[in-house]
Amino acid sequence: MPARLLIACRDRPGIVAAVAGFLFGRGANVVASDQHSTGPADGTFFMRMEFVGGGADLSPAFAAQVGEPFAMEWTYWPDERPKRLAILVSREDHCLLDLLWRRRRGDLAADVPVVISNHPDHAADVRAFGVPYEVVPVAGALAKPGAEARMLELLAAAEPDLIVLARYMQVLSGDFLARAGVPVVNIHHSFLPAFPGADPYTRALERGVKIVGATAHFVTEELDAGPIIDQDVVRVSHRDEVAVLARLGRDVERQVLARAVAAVVDDRVLVHEGRTIVF
Amino acid sequence: MPARLLIACRDRPGIVAAVAGFLFGRGANVVASDQHSTGPADGTFFMRMEFVGGGADLSPAFAAQVGEPFAMEWTYWPDERPKRLAILVSREDHCLLDLLWRRRRGDLAADVPVVISNHPDHAADVRAFGVPYEVVPVAGALAKPGAEARMLELLAAAEPDLIVLARYMQVLSGDFLARAGVPVVNIHHSFLPAFPGADPYTRALERGVKIVGATAHFVTEELDAGPIIDQDVVRVSHRDEVAVLARLGRDVERQVLARAVAAVVDDRVLVHEGRTIVF
Amino acid sequence: MPARLLIACRDRPGIVAAVAGFLFGRGANVVASDQHSTGPADGTFFMRMEFVGGGADLSPAFAAQVGEPFAMEWTYWPDERPKRLAILVSREDHCLLDLLWRRRRGDLAADVPVVISNHPDHAADVRAFGVPYEVVPVAGALAKPGAEARMLELLAAAEPDLIVLARYMQVLSGDFLARAGVPVVNIHHSFLPAFPGADPYTRALERGVKIVGATAHFVTEELDAGPIIDQDVVRVSHRDEVAVLARLGRDVERQVLARAVAAVVDDRVLVHEGRTIVF
Amino acid sequence: MPARLLIACRDRPGIVAAVAGFLFGRGANVVASDQHSTGPADGTFFMRMEFVGGGADLSPAFAAQVGEPFAMEWTYWPDERPKRLAILVSREDHCLLDLLWRRRRGDLAADVPVVISNHPDHAADVRAFGVPYEVVPVAGALAKPGAEARMLELLAAAEPDLIVLARYMQVLSGDFLARAGVPVVNIHHSFLPAFPGADPYTRALERGVKIVGATAHFVTEELDAGPIIDQDVVRVSHRDEVAVLARLGRDVERQVLARAVAAVVDDRVLVHEGRTIVF
Repeated sequence: MPARLLIACRDRPGIVAAVAGFLFGRGANVVASDQHSTGPADGTFFMRMEFVGGGADLSPAFAAQVGEPFAMEWTYWPDERPKRLAILVSREDHCLLDLLWRRRRGDLAADVPVVISNHPDHAADVRAFGVPYEVVPVAGALAKPGAEARMLELLAAAEPDLIVLARYMQVLSGDFLARAGVPVVNIHHSFLPAFPGADPYTRALERGVKIVGATAHFVTEELDAGPIIDQDVVRVSHRDEVAVLARLGRDVERQVLARAVAAVVDDRVLVHEGRTIVF
Repeated sequence: MPARLLIACRDRPGIVAAVAGFLFGRGANVVASDQHSTGPADGTFFMRMEFVGGGADLSPAFAAQVGEPFAMEWTYWPDERPKRLAILVSREDHCLLDLLWRRRRGDLAADVPVVISNHPDHAADVRAFGVPYEVVPVAGALAKPGAEARMLELLAAAEPDLIVLARYMQVLSGDFLARAGVPVVNIHHSFLPAFPGADPYTRALERGVKIVGATAHFVTEELDAGPIIDQDVVRVSHRDEVAVLARLGRDVERQVLARAVAAVVDDRVLVHEGRTIVF
Repeated sequence: MPARLLIACRDRPGIVAAVAGFLFGRGANVVASDQHSTGPADGTFFMRMEFVGGGADLSPAFAAQVGEPFAMEWTYWPDERPKRLAILVSREDHCLLDLLWRRRRGDLAADVPVVISNHPDHAADVRAFGVPYEVVPVAGALAKPGAEARMLELLAAAEPDLIVLARYMQVLSGDFLARAGVPVVNIHHSFLPAFPGADPYTRALERGVKIVGATAHFVTEELDAGPIIDQDVVRVSHRDEVAVLARLGRDVERQVLARAVAAVVDDRVLVHEGRTIVF
Repeated sequence: MPARLLIACRDRPGIVAAVAGFLFGRGANVVASDQHSTGPADGTFFMRMEFVGGGADLSPAFAAQVGEPFAMEWTYWPDERPKRLAILVSREDHCLLDLLWRRRRGDLAADVPVVISNHPDHAADVRAFGVPYEVVPVAGALAKPGAEARMLELLAAAEPDLIVLARYMQVLSGDFLARAGVPVVNIHHSFLPAFPGADPYTRALERGVKIVGATAHFVTEELDAGPIIDQDVVRVSHRDEVAVLARLGRDVERQVLARAVAAVVDDRVLVHEGRTIVF
């Protein structure tokens, strides 16, 4: 994977020329780029660039010569290090196993330093992939602060770049999210904003919808309201009971979460004003 | 199209045998049938049957010999008469033209005795299909009772079996629905229950969803809450402005409405406890 | 799962009445049925029925009273026994793991008495599911008869109702298929009839298609020409190299194979004149 | 619509910087750009750029300063002129009407100076859109050269930028294609390379496929083998007769053709080594 630059700033003439000129001047070769702005006047400029070469860390020079003059928000990811994913999971194993399978097969270019669960169920499965499995029970609301503190210790040791909630069914506090300090991606088992909260398949059956879906989104303090990364759906029929909706939905959930995680890992996702730009 | 029977009743042994035996005894030949029940104990039995032959109207004999003994809700549609659709439309023409074109091609086996609009815009288009076009303006809330009364007159003359709201943007009163006396199918431009009410594409953009959709449903007094007949979706991206979402959505709307209308015309839809069974 | 009847015969009046009357007379309750015929005159009649009750094996009585009088081809599967699947696999593990995982979850109601591979790679994974793993290498064309003989021994011991080729990349001889004596389902990594044979993703790239797909079909002596059970596709772009097409395709392959196997296990598939009827 | 540049050339460092620098120097503002190359060593570079401003025709200066130094193949389309589409059609009207509806609604930003058909059927429909309709019968193989000559006269007068075969069922000669001198887009009613040639729906039924599709492609002398622009599919069942497959397929055909035509009109399609790059 080449190095990546993700950029957002107020649009004005010359940004592409400045970025491309900077990289060319450092001997980097642009492999791919994708850019657009939201309007010719007073719009916002968004860009993702992949490049090879350019020597050691470009960050200080880029900041001084391009980032600051254009008042950019930007992130740079060098090509030498895979991203590190910490996975949190409760009882359902389909998203967890799918991510671990993809990583072992080389389809997901990331390391998984730890899997944390509030249940012991998946220990054997996870360890068979050579991945540490930690159990942090959450026994009632009173126990949550202690459980979150323990998880933060484990995460501090694991040093993840991204936390993935692969059907982790405990609500995380705003304090936890702030202290975790890295993006958190969740998979919700409905096509949000339909059926936020608990038991979406039961409520889908009650409403008589003909499609059910899944939504991968960044986690914010407001439940199921964070920026959406990816969504997909599957057709269902009046004959399908809740257990069948859940079974059909699992195939969509693991697919959508895998796509969303891959997008974040490849630095193809940028959050701006509460919505995602997915290059 | 063969004759159709649609049946719902409390499940108990012998229903299929009774219906099939009745038709066989009348010399009818079952062309297709589809049946299921919601559970072996205390479930509900649903069936749709297509058959040819059997002589003149089977209704009285069926009621006496099968319908009443099993306490069925049932409808029978003979094979000789196409259904009659009245179409209501406002400014957007994509659903209207699609239905008229499918009917002209012979893909939709129904007659269209009248199109009613609150705008004059589509007169030439509709009349080119040989269909009468009536304009009933709705100038403000005060004018609605008068407009609905006029529409009921036009509908009484047209004798529809079904009313189709092909992007008709006025809310119909419960009184109108009761007097119309036939099912009313609407196309809503979101994947309900997400984004009920007005401007769903604007709200989809604000929420940053990655799919938009459309929902065809029976109209009830509660806005956008009637039984869903069909739904579908299309992927969108962060680059798509509201006008683009609306354009992509139009293709889904006309497709979903056409499928839903065809299902109702073919007697493949049954409503039970606020949800549809779509055979 | 209730008991199932699958029926094909020449259409004539009274078949539904005869089957339903027979089951009612035995005290069986029809849970679901689906039936159609290909034409009112000289057509073929197809039916699938699910029922509960009816006592011990209905086969002899059904044959005498219904099957023979109507010259039916029919199969009966009682409700007490799960189907047995033997899985054959080569190096790619995505279809294999997906099937084993669905079975463990209870989403696939079948037993897996054996997995046979021409490679040792998956031994640990398969045995972790509690399933025996047998390696039968196929070292060149000369070795094939011996390998097939060894596989037939293993299959004879496993007594499968169905053999699933979960990306098994060796061509099976007509002699093997005849001796195996049960249906064989294969997953081919293209939307047949496009790109039969080897390396479909390479050829898809060369042709510049915008969708790739997968096809589950019954295996016959003619390669990739057996009756199709299920297919699905995924959109791809000009940027996707063969490795990316293969990665995207794997998700479709495992999904299509799982759906097809579930359909066969549930007796929802009937083969007639080289094509499938999938209820 | 902003001005567009489409570029293909051998990859080497500095191309993005050179193009962006050229446009910035002319006072143009890049609104969107998308670029990638097929490999870091010896790859091909592809780019599409949208920009506003930059003054009068940039072509001579771009050629001298950028195009020739990098040995680019490139096209430039200024922002002031809509593209002109000539549509050819036979008896089926669904693709024709769909394109005319989209254009009238403003969803397809193009002019249609002429529709040419080998049948008189669509005269009233087309003229109702204010578009000239010309009938050029093709009575047998002997009549083809004369018919093509007449069509070339009509096309010369219409000055199209693109010719669209909206279910035009006559094979066009290589000589016609060469003289037409503009790209020709066809819609084929199968997911090529499956079922090239005549009667794809009949052959799909015979093969028992579970999906049918449509393919929009550039026309070359070799029938149904030109570069594919877009494809899509729809699920079908064993119950669907050829007429049903054709009806379901029509919805896909018109959708795929409309998307492909919009892509060409917006200069999002580039042909390289017999395959398309669709930005």
